[in-house]
Amino acid sequence: MKLSELAERIDAELIGDGAIEIASVGPLDNSRAGQVSFLANAKYIKQLETTGASAVIVGKSVRVDNVPLLVTRDPYLAFSKAIVALHGYRQHPFSGVHPKAFVEPTASIGAGTVVYPGAYVGHRVAIGRDSIIYPNVVIYEDCVIGDRCIIHGGAVIGADGYGFASSSGEHHKIPQIGNVVIEDDVEIGPGTTISRAALESTVIGKGTKIDQQVVIGHNVKIGQHCLIVAQVAIAGSTTVGHHTTLAGQVGVAGHLTIGDKVTVGAQSGVMHDLEEPGIYAGTPAMPFAHARRVYSIFSELPELQKRIKELEARVEELTADGPEIV
Amino acid sequence: MKLSELAERIDAELIGDGAIEIASVGPLDNSRAGQVSFLANAKYIKQLETTGASAVIVGKSVRVDNVPLLVTRDPYLAFSKAIVALHGYRQHPFSGVHPKAFVEPTASIGAGTVVYPGAYVGHRVAIGRDSIIYPNVVIYEDCVIGDRCIIHGGAVIGADGYGFASSSGEHHKIPQIGNVVIEDDVEIGPGTTISRAALESTVIGKGTKIDQQVVIGHNVKIGQHCLIVAQVAIAGSTTVGHHTTLAGQVGVAGHLTIGDKVTVGAQSGVMHDLEEPGIYAGTPAMPFAHARRVYSIFSELPELQKRIKELEARVEELTADGPEIV
Amino acid sequence: MKLSELAERIDAELIGDGAIEIASVGPLDNSRAGQVSFLANAKYIKQLETTGASAVIVGKSVRVDNVPLLVTRDPYLAFSKAIVALHGYRQHPFSGVHPKAFVEPTASIGAGTVVYPGAYVGHRVAIGRDSIIYPNVVIYEDCVIGDRCIIHGGAVIGADGYGFASSSGEHHKIPQIGNVVIEDDVEIGPGTTISRAALESTVIGKGTKIDQQVVIGHNVKIGQHCLIVAQVAIAGSTTVGHHTTLAGQVGVAGHLTIGDKVTVGAQSGVMHDLEEPGIYAGTPAMPFAHARRVYSIFSELPELQKRIKELEARVEELTADGPEIV
Repeated sequence: MKLSELAERIDAELIGDGAIEIASVGPLDNSRAGQVSFLANAKYIKQLETTGASAVIVGKSVRVDNVPLLVTRDPYLAFSKAIVALHGYRQHPFSGVHPKAFVEPTASIGAGTVVYPGAYVGHRVAIGRDSIIYPNVVIYEDCVIGDRCIIHGGAVIGADGYGFASSSGEHHKIPQIGNVVIEDDVEIGPGTTISRAALESTVIGKGTKIDQQVVIGHNVKIGQHCLIVAQVAIAGSTTVGHHTTLAGQVGVAGHLTIGDKVTVGAQSGVMHDLEEPGIYAGTPAMPFAHARRVYSIFSELPELQKRIKELEARVEELTADGPEIV
Repeated sequence: MKLSELAERIDAELIGDGAIEIASVGPLDNSRAGQVSFLANAKYIKQLETTGASAVIVGKSVRVDNVPLLVTRDPYLAFSKAIVALHGYRQHPFSGVHPKAFVEPTASIGAGTVVYPGAYVGHRVAIGRDSIIYPNVVIYEDCVIGDRCIIHGGAVIGADGYGFASSSGEHHKIPQIGNVVIEDDVEIGPGTTISRAALESTVIGKGTKIDQQVVIGHNVKIGQHCLIVAQVAIAGSTTVGHHTTLAGQVGVAGHLTIGDKVTVGAQSGVMHDLEEPGIYAGTPAMPFAHARRVYSIFSELPELQKRIKELEARVEELTADGPEIV
Repeated sequence: MKLSELAERIDAELIGDGAIEIASVGPLDNSRAGQVSFLANAKYIKQLETTGASAVIVGKSVRVDNVPLLVTRDPYLAFSKAIVALHGYRQHPFSGVHPKAFVEPTASIGAGTVVYPGAYVGHRVAIGRDSIIYPNVVIYEDCVIGDRCIIHGGAVIGADGYGFASSSGEHHKIPQIGNVVIEDDVEIGPGTTISRAALESTVIGKGTKIDQQVVIGHNVKIGQHCLIVAQVAIAGSTTVGHHTTLAGQVGVAGHLTIGDKVTVGAQSGVMHDLEEPGIYAGTPAMPFAHARRVYSIFSELPELQKRIKELEARVEELTADGPEIV
């Protein structure tokens, strides 16, 4: 593809020779002729001067002479479009349901959807169009998967929620008669498990992207266009709004409400509702600026303790001085 | 089923018309005629007045006129019985070992046990009666599974424990020649992995319920009727007593002893034995009441720091005053 | 095997009757005649006097009369050699690719490698010699696995990295066109997921041992002979050196550098580079000795708060005294 055509495809301003042929993308520090790279993080700006790439996608404020530039407001987004333009998405080695997948006869699978070997699709499951079910995914009965969804290897959708009624110290299984509903354009990482609701539906909203080894408890409702990063666990009956991000290893207690446009930092423990949009971090989760101060002081607790000791000594001295003065 | 019959089945006192027909269960805020719901959490008591359910299971202290009541000491337990009475447990679409499961010929599988497609059952594995092995479960050779056990999709039982002898900076694999023994009435969530013992048996006691994506290290012994919630990790050779609960994302170090009737709060880090019954929380795990105070002060460390600064200023002033006085 | 022969095989000094027959290994507190056991941890030294074992492997400083000893500098290493000598590693019930595995025709699998039922090996995957792919492992296209690697049940290698370009609040999938390269002698635990790189390769270095349910993000490079313990999560583009240990449930942020011979304690949160060899712990990760003091003070924050209150009262008193003095 000519560089000029690529510039048009990714909606960037071209500075340099548009006739150059671009065949693929590469990283800034390890590209060769025929590749386009990108600079989105100022940390790597030195690599721009020595890159072997034939062109580099950059932000509006960057100018260099050694290599043709594709200038755009959002270089990362533009680069992602370049990857799509030059490489496209995975080509599947078959179409439809692979004969080595197991799909119950009462399940329905939309046109353009592929189901890989080893996947299990239970009774009355409905999967929309153009979705991808990778190898060894398990989808329990009655779950609903939308259009253009991607479920990666080994994910388990709709296993029984962790529901027991305890009596005299023993735990009696409560039938989980609900299901899981995954709306359109959702991606689910490998090893993630999403529990079916006790009574109604566990819901993953349209456009939400869930990373690997995430746990979603029963009856949880996640809104649209959220990012749920690796090893997050959300306990039962919690509701998450739209455009919310939970970073890696975050734990969220059950029966909580997390609002729209909330971001929770990695490893945080959320034990209370977080209704206001904003960034939170820490355990218990606090507004980010506050959490920064808390963890900074925490890391220097020995210093704080020393200051208290010194104060005690000085106050002791002052008190001892007292009588002398009097 | 008539409401009067349901009342009898779940051992509740009926207040209202016993002739009403009940077909299914529903949530308090979203039920319709023919459904029975429940109120176990006072937080939702307002929903009782507007529920569309034909009857509601409630505790002894609750009385309303707008809907027939099933009164019982433990509404949650009674509701779970109602779900069993009205809906029952999952009906499997086949019986015995599904032809798409893979069971080594030396394995033995008890009457009434079902093994779903894609499950792997290794050499000499023994599974008891009326157990359920869901799709894509992997059970390594020589493991023993009891009666009425449930193992959810993608769980892996009996993979090698993480045992290496390190020498000159390299790690040499130690054959893990033990197995895993899962006693009767155990449920294991999707994606959970339980390592085989180095020499003897990793044991999960009767009636213990393990949630999804839990890690059980080699040689661990878990007692009876425990609850091990999602993403808990228990390191090798630790012993857990009976009726103990580990909440979500708890980590337990190796070679420890956790006693009977211990509850450890979510995300806690257990680095020492917890032998006394009681509730613990935090990292390092502390008695719950103490942990509450610790985390409350922790969240207000900037305030504590400010008080120290003020003390320093005042002591400075007092010290400075000193010479003037003298 | 005669005890004298075993002593030679494990390179230990024999004290006692070398003609004794040894058939297997057993734990110190539960061995019988014909078994060899070991003592590596002084905590268990009392068991040495009452062991039923026919011989015990011990360190240089241990001497007892009641049982023949195999004396060595590193009893744990010697015991691991004894297990190999007496029991060996798992014998597979078949050789090569099991007919119930699914291997794309363009994949290549080296001599001596076994692929268990239910495993999926994608297009152009290359697996070296004498490796073991356990049941229901998923390996996406173009990944490379070395010689003598072991990948346990349900692990997923090479699923798409979590890469999205967000625009107007929606997240657009970036094709992940790289792969995963696993060098020789790597072991990967059950349920672990390793993401393919966005552009190049996610790399696991030679001899590194990864435990169960570990998350490795895209573009991560892990060096040689590392230990990555259960439920660790390493975010994208982070580099880990050689001979480094990350203990259970550690989280490492993205784009960081962790050096050689670094050890990070369980549950720590690594948010900054850790380039110097040494032991770190806590959140944020700190040098171990410092972390110990921090967490010790943390656990006693109520005491610290009390001391501040007392100081305030005394300073108040001193200040109040002031005017009286003047």
